[in-house]
Amino acid sequence: MITSQLLRPESIVVVGASNNVHKPGGAILRNLISGGFRGALRAVNPKEKEVQGVTAFADVKDVPDTELAILAIPAAMCPEAVEVLANEKKTKAFIVLSAGFGEETHEGALLEQQILDTVNRYGASLIGPNCIGLLNTWHHSVFSQPIPNLDPKGVDLISSSGATAVFILESAVTKGLQFNSVWSVGNGKQIGVEDVLQFMDEHFDAEKDSHIKLLYIENIKDPDRLLFHASSLIRKGCKIAAIKAGSSESGSRAASSHTGAIASSDSAVEALFRKAGIVRCFSREELTTVGCVFTLPELKGKNVAIITHAGGPGVMLTDALSKGGMNVPKLEGEAAEALKAQLFPGASVGNPIDVLATGTPEHLRLCLDFCENKFDNIDAVMAIFGTPGLVTMFDMYDVLHEKMQTCRKPIFPILPSVNTAGAEVAEFLAKGHVNFADEVTLGTALSRIMNVPRPAASEIELLGVDIPRIRRIIDSIPENGYIEPHYVQALLHAAGIPLVDEFVSDNKEEVIAFARRCGFPVVAKVVGPVHKSDVGGVVLNIKGEQHLALEFDRMMQIPDAKAVMVQPMLKGTELFIGAKYEEKFGHVVLCGLGGIFVEVLKDVSSGLAPLSYPEAYSMIRSLRAYKIIKGTRGQKGVNEDKFAEIIVRLSTLLRFATEIKEMDINPLLATEKWVIAVDARIRIEKKAG
Amino acid sequence: MITSQLLRPESIVVVGASNNVHKPGGAILRNLISGGFRGALRAVNPKEKEVQGVTAFADVKDVPDTELAILAIPAAMCPEAVEVLANEKKTKAFIVLSAGFGEETHEGALLEQQILDTVNRYGASLIGPNCIGLLNTWHHSVFSQPIPNLDPKGVDLISSSGATAVFILESAVTKGLQFNSVWSVGNGKQIGVEDVLQFMDEHFDAEKDSHIKLLYIENIKDPDRLLFHASSLIRKGCKIAAIKAGSSESGSRAASSHTGAIASSDSAVEALFRKAGIVRCFSREELTTVGCVFTLPELKGKNVAIITHAGGPGVMLTDALSKGGMNVPKLEGEAAEALKAQLFPGASVGNPIDVLATGTPEHLRLCLDFCENKFDNIDAVMAIFGTPGLVTMFDMYDVLHEKMQTCRKPIFPILPSVNTAGAEVAEFLAKGHVNFADEVTLGTALSRIMNVPRPAASEIELLGVDIPRIRRIIDSIPENGYIEPHYVQALLHAAGIPLVDEFVSDNKEEVIAFARRCGFPVVAKVVGPVHKSDVGGVVLNIKGEQHLALEFDRMMQIPDAKAVMVQPMLKGTELFIGAKYEEKFGHVVLCGLGGIFVEVLKDVSSGLAPLSYPEAYSMIRSLRAYKIIKGTRGQKGVNEDKFAEIIVRLSTLLRFATEIKEMDINPLLATEKWVIAVDARIRIEKKAG
Repeated sequence: MITSQLLRPESIVVVGASNNVHKPGGAILRNLISGGFRGALRAVNPKEKEVQGVTAFADVKDVPDTELAILAIPAAMCPEAVEVLANEKKTKAFIVLSAGFGEETHEGALLEQQILDTVNRYGASLIGPNCIGLLNTWHHSVFSQPIPNLDPKGVDLISSSGATAVFILESAVTKGLQFNSVWSVGNGKQIGVEDVLQFMDEHFDAEKDSHIKLLYIENIKDPDRLLFHASSLIRKGCKIAAIKAGSSESGSRAASSHTGAIASSDSAVEALFRKAGIVRCFSREELTTVGCVFTLPELKGKNVAIITHAGGPGVMLTDALSKGGMNVPKLEGEAAEALKAQLFPGASVGNPIDVLATGTPEHLRLCLDFCENKFDNIDAVMAIFGTPGLVTMFDMYDVLHEKMQTCRKPIFPILPSVNTAGAEVAEFLAKGHVNFADEVTLGTALSRIMNVPRPAASEIELLGVDIPRIRRIIDSIPENGYIEPHYVQALLHAAGIPLVDEFVSDNKEEVIAFARRCGFPVVAKVVGPVHKSDVGGVVLNIKGEQHLALEFDRMMQIPDAKAVMVQPMLKGTELFIGAKYEEKFGHVVLCGLGGIFVEVLKDVSSGLAPLSYPEAYSMIRSLRAYKIIKGTRGQKGVNEDKFAEIIVRLSTLLRFATEIKEMDINPLLATEKWVIAVDARIRIEKKAG
Repeated sequence: MITSQLLRPESIVVVGASNNVHKPGGAILRNLISGGFRGALRAVNPKEKEVQGVTAFADVKDVPDTELAILAIPAAMCPEAVEVLANEKKTKAFIVLSAGFGEETHEGALLEQQILDTVNRYGASLIGPNCIGLLNTWHHSVFSQPIPNLDPKGVDLISSSGATAVFILESAVTKGLQFNSVWSVGNGKQIGVEDVLQFMDEHFDAEKDSHIKLLYIENIKDPDRLLFHASSLIRKGCKIAAIKAGSSESGSRAASSHTGAIASSDSAVEALFRKAGIVRCFSREELTTVGCVFTLPELKGKNVAIITHAGGPGVMLTDALSKGGMNVPKLEGEAAEALKAQLFPGASVGNPIDVLATGTPEHLRLCLDFCENKFDNIDAVMAIFGTPGLVTMFDMYDVLHEKMQTCRKPIFPILPSVNTAGAEVAEFLAKGHVNFADEVTLGTALSRIMNVPRPAASEIELLGVDIPRIRRIIDSIPENGYIEPHYVQALLHAAGIPLVDEFVSDNKEEVIAFARRCGFPVVAKVVGPVHKSDVGGVVLNIKGEQHLALEFDRMMQIPDAKAVMVQPMLKGTELFIGAKYEEKFGHVVLCGLGGIFVEVLKDVSSGLAPLSYPEAYSMIRSLRAYKIIKGTRGQKGVNEDKFAEIIVRLSTLLRFATEIKEMDINPLLATEKWVIAVDARIRIEKKAG
């Protein structure tokens, strides 16, 4: 629960306030004072009458009513202080900085629970314990530095690690990134990353609120809520980027040794971020660079013009953009010639536009004008202007500043001379701009952003999937584990997923009669033995009745043989669909081409059920082998629409059958005309009733 | 030609010296003076008696003998000044800063040529024109800033773009990277990147010289020389990293609009760097990070321990290292327990080792001791220590400094708090250390370095390839273009590459007799028509004489049919080898699996002929589909040794037949036992004699 007293308290008390700014209780008071908090500020300190000029009380019992309390006292003392404040002082918000709780010991976890019970009982907010606090434009309730520049249109940063938040700020302030708020949720006992996001979504004010959210998450505790509120915010016009640390096996160990987090499987995270439209980042540097890009107007297309007075960085940036699927289109024709005529001899306008080392601020202005008004195919401009130190860059950056106010297209400032033109860059940043010091880091970040899809629709595609029947089938299955073929068939049928005709019998005549009906050639498989192939229990391409009769007799002699299954022998491209239930995330659906593509090349893409058509297409199209699905070099492709439909249908089936913990359709055969499941396995697990 | 007067001049004259440090002729004089140049310093300025306290002469004719001349005067005035200095003043080295030469106009190119002729006639060195100059520990002959900290063991930076060199320095100084020299070769009229490298190689002194070279190259003018001297330096113990800008199609355009460079094909660059053992980088940030890693001792293995007092960055670093093929192995057992017992409760030692936010400098020392002496499987340590600003970090960084002097294993300092602990980081850097402010950037750079192979052996593997015969065959081919099948066969035979038996005839009886000898089934192909498949001219899997006779008759009816070719029908995994002659680089050899792997997935790796066995294996093993070659999931693999041998033999053939401009063997069929060429095409181009 996030109360208004947490966000905009009229009064704050620092319990454990100190004159020593090397202690959290001293540092946070200093930050509150220097942050210009305008409400009533109080301190609790048993030994002082005044701390850093703020009136101090010996005990929380002596404090007047106070809306927000910050606790910087030993863990064992916290529960009582919280009780007194909540009960007697009408305190409706708590920030507990202290460590020594659930992250360390069992006893600590009990203290933490006691605090939570109290704040919940009084309808109060709790940030922490074990955190650096909360910083916003109203109050600087953090004990850490650096304090970034604050602006209501700046970034909201929500971090599950305090130290990481601090280091993200280190990386951000150098770039000029401004913040609206910084949340360090610590142990997140009451308020976690998901809760902050939910609050921001439910109270979103498009006029007043920040549109940019950066997240650092070590453990996604509630994927559904993260997905719902992240997508919702993005649909309302927000931009969200996040680091989910612990993506590798060793990385997961690191995360769990840190906060007791059990890392979620990474493909589930990948799928969730794609579904929500969250830009995934892997480093602080990347996160803050993406954050800086978010502060600029959105690109309407992928065509970039580069303006520079130094060739090399323009070349490297072009490489990075091209690699990331962006374009640096050639500029030519009348407009290009007109521009060239107004620059110094030797300047080039082909893109990158190189105004030469001697290029003037007026040249930059001219190039920006042309990019905005004459080069219609250009969607964004990147201006690389550093200096070897001969002249100052104030005039040049003034032109950038001025044009950035008015230009209809986004302008990305790349100012590499952070030392030599340090004063100029600082002045530019002081006007509220960001700076991308490394052009390739920007190019890579922008490409990453441009390749993230919009949030998926939240409606479930029903497509006539027979949900009551699915429930009846699931409920009728007697045991956990891999279910029998007839249940598999029934479930796929209820979901409207075409399955190859098949017939099982221990009667030779019936088997032959079926083969005659469906047409030769057929495939025969023994029913009963587990490893069919190993015992000669699978025969492909049986072309006639006589051959089938012989195989039937032979197969029925195999130990454990109960019957023989016959299917028509189809020819097509092998596809694959699989799904796995991930605790808390739900079903992760994988798709790809079959055989070596899945097994050797691991060329699969993932999505989170339920899936929409656009998501299914996006999954299919992000396969490396997509060209084979589309058809290539005279080879016909497969029916992509039907493939997508089956993915969507399967995801709907899964949504209503959460007992399915694992399943795969492999192979799914496909031609230009049809896509049909040939073999499928489903494993269910029902809770003991 | 690089003269000693260029490197360690006893006297320097700045022609066009100025009191205005906003002009190159003023800035370079200021840099020389503030750089403490200890020789005789002179100026030429028609209006002054003294410039910045240095005696000025009105004309170059009045100057006493001077070893090095720096020209900062208009291009048109340079040739005469050079002539006077070289002829009358014994000047043996020139740095021409001025622009307005070949990079701009035809007239400029002529002036440039005139200067070159003069300096060559007098055996002098020429850096430039159109450059920022040359900076080393002896003299700061650059007009640009920043001036990095200089140290004889620092980095040698060689750049074909002056502005890029300046921006690389901006990125480097922030990290504390020190330099031995910075070369901006400008138009490289006499001395290009390759020349500097050659000089460094031929005069290499393992005791005195820097072991680290960073290159920025827009155009590889002489790939052979770059390869030879880069490999040679690396074999002598040097480490080299390079940016070759212009890797994308648009990027190449950017590079050529910049310096008139014609970009080389990127796979040739990739192949050359692999062969030389050069670490390829794509951004300034990456290049300087790799440069910083190079300053630390080399890793003996891939196992890293991470020590931190903040969890998050440790997790992200673990992710990045794992993704790059490095390990963050779990630390356990007695030693781990012993360490844990000496840290604060709640600390974890599983790796990352987390000493908690309250961890002390002594804890860090202890962890470093354990990593050095107790954890035998650890090859390197990364220490992440920032601060939220409560206490200063001087003591902590002193421990790092101290241990870095003595530890047998490399220690990577990651100090993220560049603002809050700015003073501490600065003091640490002042001791000659580097700092990796972003842990993931370091992890990625280190992985990149660890995955670069050693330089390839320079000897050509002959393997009994019959070179005289190859030359006779090539010389006997009458025309350019795709050569006839019997020439292809003869060349592969001379190279010792097994080729499937085949027989061509317009006589049906002979064709059938051959098929009988080699054994059915066979493949028959019509000889004559170009697009054989389109006219029904290819039939696979012919199982008997009668069928072959029928197909022979049918094929001979096809328009343009001259004969029929018969081969035994082999079964195996399809492989692919191709080669292309790249101007200046020589033959780029590609290998991969055949079919969709090459055509759709573009899963090929490249090497530069001639290839050694280790290179061929490295090419094969860097294929994404390598598991198929090795054998997977019960599927037998193919004979990797024979595949490698054919790659090596082909590369040797190519080395002695540079007339071959393009060729491919596709398919090359392979089983566990054999690898054999089934079809091959070769295109030759001989120079008009």
